[in-house]
Amino acid sequence: MINKAKAVVLLSGGLDSTTVLALAHDQGFETYALTLRYGQRHEVEINAATKIAETMKVARHAILDIDLGVFGGSALTDATPVPKGRSDTEIGTGIPVTYVPARNTVFLSLALAWAEVLEAYDIFIGVNALDYSGYPDCRPEFIQSFESLAALATKAGVEGAKKFTIHTPLIDLSKKEIIEKGRALGIDYGLTRTCYDPTPDGIPCGACDACLLRLKGFQEAGLEDPLDYPRG
Amino acid sequence: MINKAKAVVLLSGGLDSTTVLALAHDQGFETYALTLRYGQRHEVEINAATKIAETMKVARHAILDIDLGVFGGSALTDATPVPKGRSDTEIGTGIPVTYVPARNTVFLSLALAWAEVLEAYDIFIGVNALDYSGYPDCRPEFIQSFESLAALATKAGVEGAKKFTIHTPLIDLSKKEIIEKGRALGIDYGLTRTCYDPTPDGIPCGACDACLLRLKGFQEAGLEDPLDYPRG
Repeated sequence: MINKAKAVVLLSGGLDSTTVLALAHDQGFETYALTLRYGQRHEVEINAATKIAETMKVARHAILDIDLGVFGGSALTDATPVPKGRSDTEIGTGIPVTYVPARNTVFLSLALAWAEVLEAYDIFIGVNALDYSGYPDCRPEFIQSFESLAALATKAGVEGAKKFTIHTPLIDLSKKEIIEKGRALGIDYGLTRTCYDPTPDGIPCGACDACLLRLKGFQEAGLEDPLDYPRG
Repeated sequence: MINKAKAVVLLSGGLDSTTVLALAHDQGFETYALTLRYGQRHEVEINAATKIAETMKVARHAILDIDLGVFGGSALTDATPVPKGRSDTEIGTGIPVTYVPARNTVFLSLALAWAEVLEAYDIFIGVNALDYSGYPDCRPEFIQSFESLAALATKAGVEGAKKFTIHTPLIDLSKKEIIEKGRALGIDYGLTRTCYDPTPDGIPCGACDACLLRLKGFQEAGLEDPLDYPRG
């Protein structure tokens, strides 16, 4: 049996990161899924990530708690109401309720820490420059800068034997294209959770920005979202 | 009253980071001390950091738990015995018991997250290129790379109005020079904790690498370490 190369995959339990996990598998990596539980993350999403990690047979699933609430700041600790029913042009403006300061820097640094322990040199993250056009840490230049940092930050990088690669296979895809790719790889999107404001049982609201983007993606792909939404 | 600029200071409760905190104060910053509690950190060190933060009147002290133990790896989870009584040439070789993978990348990214919430643009870290000559993430080129990343990672950085500065005032100082600087600023080093293997009451062993480096620093500075060590 040939030893597969290992990859750390950031897995939130949402549609994007689940697609990324399937793509990493498809590229032949042995996958190590990392889910971060912080501040306002819903248990629904953590449970989804756990189920997805099992179904997709990752080598290991690590759930790491980081209580960013200690930093205070209204964006992290307030019970900000989730905006509902916004138009396409409104979506993506303002600070989303899932806002995490320096988010992708924190996420990638923790993925790098695990990669160092595992001797993995590939990290996958589902950033998307279209959905989050205003987000500095979703741009290719940020990702390239993190790759340069990783090369300087670790012994493996410095010794030059191995280079860390940050894979962002969704960076320039539309939601429609992401869903088409995932379906081609056999993903059951019924396992994924996207909603910012689900019921405790995990029923999505169907009206927050995340639900609307997801529903539009399925519609444009000519597919039906397998999740049950409340009827309007 | 003039509003002081805010700075986030990584504070472990050890001699180096306490000196850095005093230097940040001396430079006129309003300080926000960040202590990370992970894996094997001793409660002794956390208590020391808390006492130091109070004594030095920081604006806020945040203690953030990150359980890096979920990543596994022997360096993080094994009860590795602490080497004792090593010579100057042995100290600094091998993986120290306080080893954290991608350590300074993780620490700085969490400091950056808090800085973003606080609208602070200055981060202080007590890295030292002499004590840890084999550590890639204690080198100036790593720190410069993190500054470049921070500029790309956050809105404040991208908009160009503000540049994040990572301050490393100890980077090329010997332990003797660090102690001299700190004493000149009136630090009570009796509050600081350095030992890798203290008793539950916080009595340092006097024989681990960290104790030996500290004791040598005080000796070279012609000063007495105010901590009580067991008599040999």
